[in-house]
Amino acid sequence: MKKHILAVCMFAAVVTVKSQGTMSPTVIDKNVSTLLSKMTLEEKVGQMTQISVEAFLKTANGVPVEPHVFDEEKLRDAFRKYKIGSLLNVGGNAQTLALWRTRIETIQKLALQERLKIPVLYGIDAIRGNNYTLDAVLFPQQIAQAASFNVVMAARAAEVAAYETRAAFIPWNFSPVLDLGRHPAWPRIWETYGEDPYLVKEMGNAVIRGYEGNSAIIDRYHVASCLKHYMGYSMPLSGHDRTPAWIPERELREYFLPQFASAINQGARTVMVNSGEINGVPVHANKHILTDILKGELGFEGFAVSDWQDIQYLYQRHKVAADNKEAVMIAINAGIDMSMVPTDFTFCDDLIALVKEGKVSMSRIDDAVGRILKVKYETGLFDQPVGDAKDYPLFNSREHNRLNYELAAECITLLKNDDHLLPLKKGTKILVAGPSATSMSALNGGWARNWQGTNSNETEKGKNNILKAISSVFGPENVVYSAGATFTQAAGIKDAVSKAPSADVIVLCIGEDSYTETPGNIDGLTISASQIELAKALAATGKPVVYVLTEGRPRVISEIEPLSKAVLQTYLLGNEGGNVVADVLAGVINPSGKLPYTYPRYTNSLTNYYHKYTESLEFDPAAGYNPQWEFGHGLSYTSFAYSDLKIKSSELRVGSPLTISVTVKNTGKVVGRETALLYVSDLVASITPEVKRLRGFQKVELKPGEARELTFRITSEELSFINNDLRRVTEPGAFRLSIGGLHAPFNFH
Amino acid sequence: MKKHILAVCMFAAVVTVKSQGTMSPTVIDKNVSTLLSKMTLEEKVGQMTQISVEAFLKTANGVPVEPHVFDEEKLRDAFRKYKIGSLLNVGGNAQTLALWRTRIETIQKLALQERLKIPVLYGIDAIRGNNYTLDAVLFPQQIAQAASFNVVMAARAAEVAAYETRAAFIPWNFSPVLDLGRHPAWPRIWETYGEDPYLVKEMGNAVIRGYEGNSAIIDRYHVASCLKHYMGYSMPLSGHDRTPAWIPERELREYFLPQFASAINQGARTVMVNSGEINGVPVHANKHILTDILKGELGFEGFAVSDWQDIQYLYQRHKVAADNKEAVMIAINAGIDMSMVPTDFTFCDDLIALVKEGKVSMSRIDDAVGRILKVKYETGLFDQPVGDAKDYPLFNSREHNRLNYELAAECITLLKNDDHLLPLKKGTKILVAGPSATSMSALNGGWARNWQGTNSNETEKGKNNILKAISSVFGPENVVYSAGATFTQAAGIKDAVSKAPSADVIVLCIGEDSYTETPGNIDGLTISASQIELAKALAATGKPVVYVLTEGRPRVISEIEPLSKAVLQTYLLGNEGGNVVADVLAGVINPSGKLPYTYPRYTNSLTNYYHKYTESLEFDPAAGYNPQWEFGHGLSYTSFAYSDLKIKSSELRVGSPLTISVTVKNTGKVVGRETALLYVSDLVASITPEVKRLRGFQKVELKPGEARELTFRITSEELSFINNDLRRVTEPGAFRLSIGGLHAPFNFH
Repeated sequence: MKKHILAVCMFAAVVTVKSQGTMSPTVIDKNVSTLLSKMTLEEKVGQMTQISVEAFLKTANGVPVEPHVFDEEKLRDAFRKYKIGSLLNVGGNAQTLALWRTRIETIQKLALQERLKIPVLYGIDAIRGNNYTLDAVLFPQQIAQAASFNVVMAARAAEVAAYETRAAFIPWNFSPVLDLGRHPAWPRIWETYGEDPYLVKEMGNAVIRGYEGNSAIIDRYHVASCLKHYMGYSMPLSGHDRTPAWIPERELREYFLPQFASAINQGARTVMVNSGEINGVPVHANKHILTDILKGELGFEGFAVSDWQDIQYLYQRHKVAADNKEAVMIAINAGIDMSMVPTDFTFCDDLIALVKEGKVSMSRIDDAVGRILKVKYETGLFDQPVGDAKDYPLFNSREHNRLNYELAAECITLLKNDDHLLPLKKGTKILVAGPSATSMSALNGGWARNWQGTNSNETEKGKNNILKAISSVFGPENVVYSAGATFTQAAGIKDAVSKAPSADVIVLCIGEDSYTETPGNIDGLTISASQIELAKALAATGKPVVYVLTEGRPRVISEIEPLSKAVLQTYLLGNEGGNVVADVLAGVINPSGKLPYTYPRYTNSLTNYYHKYTESLEFDPAAGYNPQWEFGHGLSYTSFAYSDLKIKSSELRVGSPLTISVTVKNTGKVVGRETALLYVSDLVASITPEVKRLRGFQKVELKPGEARELTFRITSEELSFINNDLRRVTEPGAFRLSIGGLHAPFNFH
Repeated sequence: MKKHILAVCMFAAVVTVKSQGTMSPTVIDKNVSTLLSKMTLEEKVGQMTQISVEAFLKTANGVPVEPHVFDEEKLRDAFRKYKIGSLLNVGGNAQTLALWRTRIETIQKLALQERLKIPVLYGIDAIRGNNYTLDAVLFPQQIAQAASFNVVMAARAAEVAAYETRAAFIPWNFSPVLDLGRHPAWPRIWETYGEDPYLVKEMGNAVIRGYEGNSAIIDRYHVASCLKHYMGYSMPLSGHDRTPAWIPERELREYFLPQFASAINQGARTVMVNSGEINGVPVHANKHILTDILKGELGFEGFAVSDWQDIQYLYQRHKVAADNKEAVMIAINAGIDMSMVPTDFTFCDDLIALVKEGKVSMSRIDDAVGRILKVKYETGLFDQPVGDAKDYPLFNSREHNRLNYELAAECITLLKNDDHLLPLKKGTKILVAGPSATSMSALNGGWARNWQGTNSNETEKGKNNILKAISSVFGPENVVYSAGATFTQAAGIKDAVSKAPSADVIVLCIGEDSYTETPGNIDGLTISASQIELAKALAATGKPVVYVLTEGRPRVISEIEPLSKAVLQTYLLGNEGGNVVADVLAGVINPSGKLPYTYPRYTNSLTNYYHKYTESLEFDPAAGYNPQWEFGHGLSYTSFAYSDLKIKSSELRVGSPLTISVTVKNTGKVVGRETALLYVSDLVASITPEVKRLRGFQKVELKPGEARELTFRITSEELSFINNDLRRVTEPGAFRLSIGGLHAPFNFH
């Protein structure tokens, strides 16, 4: 075991670069209001308008010329005629760092030629690294990062992502996703931090610190974050993307709002709005959610941007408006500040007309524009609309890639390891099989070098896929390969089976190919038939089989799970995924990830770990909670024992938190990391209580035989819930906490 | 085709028997208040108490002795000590009519020995006929009756059910279920009238007329109905019975409330409360739903009974109360009038104490007891606590059984009939296979002669199962049989396949065995593996295969549907199901049922027909609406053509309904029945409109070549919906109606 790798970055603090900005918050407010006072209606509306860069790219046969070239006349027109204030996106495939820099230089040059010289705010989906810039580090996707339970490393990765985004002169990142990943079929589950509100909140807070830094002005190494998708996007009734959700306001406030509230409380600059409808109202038309809650209750001072085309969709898809003009009126009056239009100027024309007709007030416009200008000041754009290339020597550096490996090593999750099959001994003969063994797109998922992640095999060919990494670690002489099947076809099974006899073990890499959003919709959660067939055929050879799962969401594998000896969940580990898989198989990495969601056993039994008592009645197995693996499940090559659970007082009071200590010991033979998960159960409450809720976690590294006492604090706030009057309350009564299999009762008075 | 069968009862009016009661409603109100004024607290609480008869039966080895025998001392004690006012249920298996009569006589005799001589209100689950009395007619289950789209026949069947229930001297029926059958995995979907609120409401209204009759006092041939399960029970998030539902109040009012409101407006006497929780609050603890809406808004004057043990479950399962006493306090204060305790007297003790402590007001008690006494007067119990056996000569009569056949003939639904395979010619050699071919329990489902319907093969052996009926219709010499598989085991496939060569056609009877409530929970919607295997093996013989589906819910069959030439959906047709299947196969019955739900194609793509536009975007098949069969789908042996759709005015106004006419013609060669389904689409609305909503239906019988003009009326009320302020509104604008593939636009001003 390479200790030097395991030890790095564990408790690295977020590096804070002192702001080079010249403006204090007070000065910014003054500047915003001065600027606002000079602006015409047309200039204001332009600031509220965001257009996709694809509208300005030269095309051949309808697709952008590669590498991208601007149609500068079109672009100039957009500034001159429509005064647009924001651009986004890439227009297809990732571009080089150099091209990004000249692109932004061109944009700002043209924008600054206009009367008021307001720089453009460019936004990008740099979801887990600056994926739309070639060679930028592709970190594990959010769902994998959640499995690390390591907020320090997640924050550090976010900071690197911010650095590499700013290296492309882009100051605004449409990340993180704070949606709650509760519905396993939803195609964006992997863009979330999983099913638990507490984990989502903690990861989100850490990552926002990483993106935005700690100073009032976002410096040249940080970016404005964008909280997505405010709010309630992730749990459509059907599981299909952008379809209706039923979320009562109590549940909205209990499960979906707190992570946004916490992030906003930390100062997160922007939010992107949920494209879906909740309870019959598209969120883009929901004033209660966008204005009353967001800007009122939460005191949000940044701005809210629509998602792609979502104002137009109010009439085109949702049918709550008769035409674009009515859609614009509804959305702006509801509280949207900026429209991701994205490819025409109808928004400008209609909004100008609406203001002139008195259907949208000038104060609403001023409010929106003021918020947008504030973020432009806060990101330093007025000082430095374009970056300086020499400031970013660490783009795609050895350090950044090392961090990627170390983070991925914390994410990978060992779900099963019968008879301690893993780690494999040196010299083990391995048959590598399965459609994801040679696929960088299956390791990276969507939001890679294009939206759907379809070109990763080409763009990331310099990185090790799983097969290459295993060959490298175990030696090519010990590795044979046969795909055996694709994700949809089982044509190669005979070949794979024929290669089994010479192997000691089969590493079967199965799961999903890359996707995101609506194209990722599925009709059934079960893993594809071709992969089931392949798994059965390989199991029939009698050789022990290790499944390496590469999947954005937990595909049901209950039919083939018993045919495996070991299962490794890699989620979407990113560009270091191959190396990390190989190093786990070899024991160089001792896995320490834990599932950030409930892994379902059946297609129509989808229940979260924090379900209600009625969902896991012991006398009623048919109605019970019987997942393939529980939230928080994850094995290690060593073992841990918990002891000495102590509660300082068994009576918790307001202002006097409960202090809990517990001792964790590494009782095995290798160094390992363990995340202690602290759950609290409310025994009686006016709202049916969940069987348990996560209320704390800590990850520690322990040498063999080493023990450590961990201390947790539980405040009365952490026992609270939203009651039937929509108020957050902590009700007196009996509670129970549990950690590492130990339990203790306590009371709140 | 036997025309005399097809013509019977089509438009039979509900038979109204003049009330023999002596009391007018005014007299009843006076009597209730006089009686109430004489009652002690203990006597009042006793009236609110309902105990299961099983508590009073003699047992051997823990199960009731058969036939049932009362422990009269225990029963007397219940009246003497606890003054209980209601009993329910059967205590296991159905009993003879004679035993029921002596049972009720004993109960009333003992009850009337008490001080105030208040008769007992006995309640029973006579779900589709008086199933708990041996030999009573077992009609099709509600889901099948919904498929008939024949409200007149459904009402007539309800009236027969009431008659046969009253023949057992029972005046109160826990029926109908008005829950909306939206979640196909829910194990009680077959107890509903399907997924459409309009159909549920129309069927419910008809059936309540059938149960209660038309007079103010319920006569000796009718029963008090009980609307179940008020409200929002049917759509748990997970699909598992009695697990949490998230139903925002807008959706509750849009989809779940109107059918209850309409039934109550018709005078339905009692409601039973939803056992589940909605939005974190058990409905048994929800004052808003039970008091504000039910007794306030809806003006309900009857009483609300808990479901089985549900007050105790408030602390045992839901954990919203610390103990039984608190549970009783919460439930009674929320608005429950009667507790189905069901087997002890804790409810009485605790409620008496709560009143004495001032935690439940005497006015709440008086309100509850007054409501209960009123129903006792209205069911004629004070006049005639026990019936007169000679009043019921038609129990299990030829007429009643004939009605059962005729109704089942209207329900059965032909889903597929490639190349006009059906009907089969006389002399066709048939291989009958599949686990439900010889199963009366699969035809009847749950709530048969016991709760789970497990003893139907024994109790109903005098009735024709599918195999017997086919043998009888086609001649035993033309029929061979091999089960081929059970619902869970595929052991007999070889035998079934070996018998295929001699057959012209294979009739494969597959689906589900009987179940209800929590024991019917499933983890996956797909039909069982053994049946899939059997279907594949039989298809491989090359013989044409007809699937006869016997199933309470639509099990996914997309893997084997292409292997069939024809598919008949029988739902749970009841005791005449075998005969009806055989007669459809032979062409004696021309099928006319239509699906009352969307038949899903995939396990994780469960969408109703009245989904939103975002759920069926044409450019996006992955997100689209692509069921196996749509709501309303159902074929005939003849064909129908629609023409001449006319709207009297294209401008609908308040108070001035739209009159629509359309001509339906039988363009085929045999007489047939067609249900014309009128849908309305709202093109723009403040709540995202559904793509269409059913707003009228009419069923007609047409001879070959015959045409008929149908007239529909649409009022502005029928275009209304619940808006975001929870008000019912009709918004002006453009609409579209569609019927039989024809469309027409209209406007509302």
